[in-house]
Amino acid sequence: MIANLPETQLERIVIIGAGFAGLKLARKLTGSQYQVVLIDKENYHQFQPLMYQVATAGLEPSSIAFPLRKVFQKEKNFHIRNDEVLSVDTHDKHLTLKNIGRVNYDKLVLAYGADTNYFGNENIRKSAMPMKSISEALALRNKILGDYERALSITDYELRQELLDIVIVGGGPTGVEIAGALADMKEYILPKDYNELNRDEVDIYLIDAGNELLAALSDKSSANAEKSLLDMGVKVIKNTVVKDYDGVNVTLSDGNIIRSRKLIWAAGVAARKLEGLPPEVYGRGQRLLVDEYNEVKGLDDVYAIGDCALMITGDNPNGDPQVAQVAMQQAANLAANLKNKLRNKPMIPFRYKDLGNMATIGRKRAVAEISGVKFSGFFAWLTWLFVHLMSILGTKNKVMIFINWAVAYFTRDQSLRLIMRPKESRGD
Amino acid sequence: MIANLPETQLERIVIIGAGFAGLKLARKLTGSQYQVVLIDKENYHQFQPLMYQVATAGLEPSSIAFPLRKVFQKEKNFHIRNDEVLSVDTHDKHLTLKNIGRVNYDKLVLAYGADTNYFGNENIRKSAMPMKSISEALALRNKILGDYERALSITDYELRQELLDIVIVGGGPTGVEIAGALADMKEYILPKDYNELNRDEVDIYLIDAGNELLAALSDKSSANAEKSLLDMGVKVIKNTVVKDYDGVNVTLSDGNIIRSRKLIWAAGVAARKLEGLPPEVYGRGQRLLVDEYNEVKGLDDVYAIGDCALMITGDNPNGDPQVAQVAMQQAANLAANLKNKLRNKPMIPFRYKDLGNMATIGRKRAVAEISGVKFSGFFAWLTWLFVHLMSILGTKNKVMIFINWAVAYFTRDQSLRLIMRPKESRGD
Repeated sequence: MIANLPETQLERIVIIGAGFAGLKLARKLTGSQYQVVLIDKENYHQFQPLMYQVATAGLEPSSIAFPLRKVFQKEKNFHIRNDEVLSVDTHDKHLTLKNIGRVNYDKLVLAYGADTNYFGNENIRKSAMPMKSISEALALRNKILGDYERALSITDYELRQELLDIVIVGGGPTGVEIAGALADMKEYILPKDYNELNRDEVDIYLIDAGNELLAALSDKSSANAEKSLLDMGVKVIKNTVVKDYDGVNVTLSDGNIIRSRKLIWAAGVAARKLEGLPPEVYGRGQRLLVDEYNEVKGLDDVYAIGDCALMITGDNPNGDPQVAQVAMQQAANLAANLKNKLRNKPMIPFRYKDLGNMATIGRKRAVAEISGVKFSGFFAWLTWLFVHLMSILGTKNKVMIFINWAVAYFTRDQSLRLIMRPKESRGD
Repeated sequence: MIANLPETQLERIVIIGAGFAGLKLARKLTGSQYQVVLIDKENYHQFQPLMYQVATAGLEPSSIAFPLRKVFQKEKNFHIRNDEVLSVDTHDKHLTLKNIGRVNYDKLVLAYGADTNYFGNENIRKSAMPMKSISEALALRNKILGDYERALSITDYELRQELLDIVIVGGGPTGVEIAGALADMKEYILPKDYNELNRDEVDIYLIDAGNELLAALSDKSSANAEKSLLDMGVKVIKNTVVKDYDGVNVTLSDGNIIRSRKLIWAAGVAARKLEGLPPEVYGRGQRLLVDEYNEVKGLDDVYAIGDCALMITGDNPNGDPQVAQVAMQQAANLAANLKNKLRNKPMIPFRYKDLGNMATIGRKRAVAEISGVKFSGFFAWLTWLFVHLMSILGTKNKVMIFINWAVAYFTRDQSLRLIMRPKESRGD
């Protein structure tokens, strides 16, 4: 018995994380014969695919953050808690949260996603800037704009270069998209807002360990993306690993050093470990090994979906990619299975249906591969917008966001270049 | 000679502060035969009259913050510097800025406004929440929403009360407007977002030292405002001073104690002292004593306008009020005078033309007094909107903001209840 949540006769499902997986699952379970408790550190869902636009001052945080309470305003037997999970006891079936303390569960769904992976490099972790949350994207925006402001009054050439140049590590969709958006900023915004700066002094580097960008796409799409970025003036460096970073010097595996005050780290993700889980549940990248029903191997009534889950099967020995589509499909499958359980119906094994892969490169350009069809350019960009819109919750939200995007994208000069920090909260 | 700003044959006017006064002056001087340098700590202008709506999650920060660079994108001989003034040397005519260092001036305009006045009470300064900047309004929003979230899981009645109750000090427009907006939040948002909370447990206190709210308005309007707030459930306490606050206990002058984790301090303002200015320039509230041309008394080529200026004349022994209208009128007057100087035309003394006084109380209610006409209710509220719109820069901005407000105000349920903090910036 716990007093911090209302009691009911219904079985309680506790979902940790309100990302694509957790939110979708929660929405699919509304109206079911379960009590649902959704726990997240933030009070909003973050629409990750557009974070790069927040970082480059193209969209407001509120355009890609959805207050969770608003989504579930009308639901009964539904509870949202804004808290952090410290540990789990899978024998006694309860969680310990940072503020609330003990929360019991009947079924637990781990959907806590994945964090930035610095591959154990403590220097990089301390000095690089990640972009896995809206908070981080906002910090990046503040830093980019703040450094432009500072550069205005710096007469020392070397120091000014450090402030103006930006190094991005990781040639996946995040790295490619932020590189494209920064190149656009250099092209369209810099000459207008900072005409005292010499645009040619701004260098944007995109560094990748492999021999092609967007490795998940075909060679053709990868080459297309690279060509687009090169056309936009991005310096693409392949087959190169960043070995170290001290806040200024980016040391590359070939021994070269690039000087920059901003290292954007989009080189990989790893799931975190949750205290209380046995060591044998963790697979590659600390992802939780699950069976075909997303149940964590060896544990009862504990499920994992989304980026933190790893489902390895005979015909899929590497598991599915850590993308929003997998997360949402797993959530839908698990919701159906949990409802089936109540009706003693059989469980349906999960199979990922790859709907395609895409990435935008700056304004009006994108590469896309849908059902084996590869295309790029403006139509690919429109498709990208459409597919992402479809992933956003609620018809009303879809419309609102679409208007937001249309205005944001076509005016070319949003009034959003604010270096904004809430004053530190007192009395906390 | 300094290297951090371009040299020209033009006289250089340095303006400190991009509030209503500084921004208006800078805009009026574009295209003139001066080089203008505008210095502000933030890279945006803050539209203060609507900060209370940011605090109560009714508007986005970007709706009332205007990036300065965007405003002046097309100007020549115009330079914006994002910096803080440390000191001034009025003999050698230069400033020392925190980042940039030395900046020379030919004419200096001090328009740095006024800060929250805690009347020397260090405890209150440490624990109360001010609302003089968008950053502070955002911090207040985060605290209000965060405390609601926490209260959900608190079973101890006393502790829950501390989190839910809010105390506002100061019955001026800021205090009245935030009290009205919080009462609306309790009425319309709380039952939807936090239906687990008992709305009746939320108390909103408005405390004022005088015997009427909105003392600058007529007795009739003051009484109207008070009645509206009482109707909305706000507990109005008059003739009472807050003596102390330790983060929980609000000690009143009558010995009573109200327990609350949020004390919003809107009880007064004071200008800051600027190092390098002689002591005799400061008047009441540390405002700078200026003559009829807004020139600081006893100094050459140093002017002060807006909240930090105090112009005492024979027929106006108390000076003008610290409101946006005075600031903007002084800016317009000074701009004309500075241009007159170039043409050896005579200076025009400043006279404040009182265009009226008004305050909103929640949704669709306001009190207004314009040219001696007193009115209240919905029409007063519309007038309030109109007058404030007219104060916002640029036709395009006026239209954009109007649409923003219309949507914000009439949907009643904005999706802006985000507890958002940019992650701390690294490498600064």
